[in-house]
Amino acid sequence: MKIAILLYPGFTALDAIGPYHSVAGVPGADFAFVAEQAGPVGNGGSFTMMATRSIDEIDALDVLLVPGGLAAITMAEEGGPLVDWIRAIHRTTTWTTSVCTGSLLLGAAGVLEGVRATTHWYCMDDLVRYGAIPTQERVVEHGKVMTAAGVSAGIDMGLRLLERLSTTEYAQAAQLDMEYDPAPPFQSGHPRCAPAHVTATVRAMYDSMLGR
Amino acid sequence: MKIAILLYPGFTALDAIGPYHSVAGVPGADFAFVAEQAGPVGNGGSFTMMATRSIDEIDALDVLLVPGGLAAITMAEEGGPLVDWIRAIHRTTTWTTSVCTGSLLLGAAGVLEGVRATTHWYCMDDLVRYGAIPTQERVVEHGKVMTAAGVSAGIDMGLRLLERLSTTEYAQAAQLDMEYDPAPPFQSGHPRCAPAHVTATVRAMYDSMLGR
Repeated sequence: MKIAILLYPGFTALDAIGPYHSVAGVPGADFAFVAEQAGPVGNGGSFTMMATRSIDEIDALDVLLVPGGLAAITMAEEGGPLVDWIRAIHRTTTWTTSVCTGSLLLGAAGVLEGVRATTHWYCMDDLVRYGAIPTQERVVEHGKVMTAAGVSAGIDMGLRLLERLSTTEYAQAAQLDMEYDPAPPFQSGHPRCAPAHVTATVRAMYDSMLGR
Repeated sequence: MKIAILLYPGFTALDAIGPYHSVAGVPGADFAFVAEQAGPVGNGGSFTMMATRSIDEIDALDVLLVPGGLAAITMAEEGGPLVDWIRAIHRTTTWTTSVCTGSLLLGAAGVLEGVRATTHWYCMDDLVRYGAIPTQERVVEHGKVMTAAGVSAGIDMGLRLLERLSTTEYAQAAQLDMEYDPAPPFQSGHPRCAPAHVTATVRAMYDSMLGR
């Protein structure tokens, strides 16, 4: 089973590493971190990790996972070789998946036309331009497309995807292995429950970063 | 504010990257990933990331975070330069913190003598040999020592630590940014709630890996 997580400059580290444990651990998986070039790929900050393959080396996958990041919003608008690669690979997959704004890259590649999907709460409206049906759930499955909400939702999706690729029992074991028994310190994980002034501050920060 | 996350061969990627977003984002932080040598450090699988500094370059920190991994259990038993470094750095910190079996490395460095602490559920008994008081909470604070339970608990700890280093409002904003509004697909994150046969399977797997 060929599985890959796509990396690109500016990707959000936790989007990729949250589900990594689940998907890379599938029995019999041939796993790769893939990028435009094999070698170091950074998040724009202090985190740099190694892509083990280039996109040129991979022309078919069973499972593709695309993480998000602010860079994904721009890349989805502008297109480019990674978007073209996603479009081609999607024709070969059993599962095409994303975390956070990675869904906008799926959208730019034409994957989300008529598909129920989610993304980071800030970008739900952006899904519409790619023909997707924005869906307010933490993990959304539609056909062979599975999308997760923002950043940490990749952990929930990773376990669900692991179940689809193996068994419920195997996914339960993975959850126990990573002691995923969450206890968030605040009620602040979604605009639905966060203090209104906190949501306003975060929204203004994104607007500023994106020049909106 | 000097903050570092320690890396070593075999560390668990999510232990480090879960809290990374929270701690690296502290206003005014001088953040480093530190290892015995600067350069690539792998998890023993397909994940390799770059340490930005060597331990020789750092002789004081405000915040130290030590991730876990199976390798931490062995390293805690055997000691070595990283344990010695933790012992020296702890004298200088405002916060000394760990995720998962990273607490055993703190223990080996003498940090946990008489200190309430936690670790991965499988290793709770191991804490006793380091003089710690095993405490069944997801995040445990005792003086300047903060320890988290297994792997994904580092996210909860990272947000709590961020609050201590900045403000409640700032930590709430970070939680909203990472959309940490968890929805685990199964009731299987701790032996307390996981199916008994799943816990038995995972425990047997660890026993086998560690030759216990």
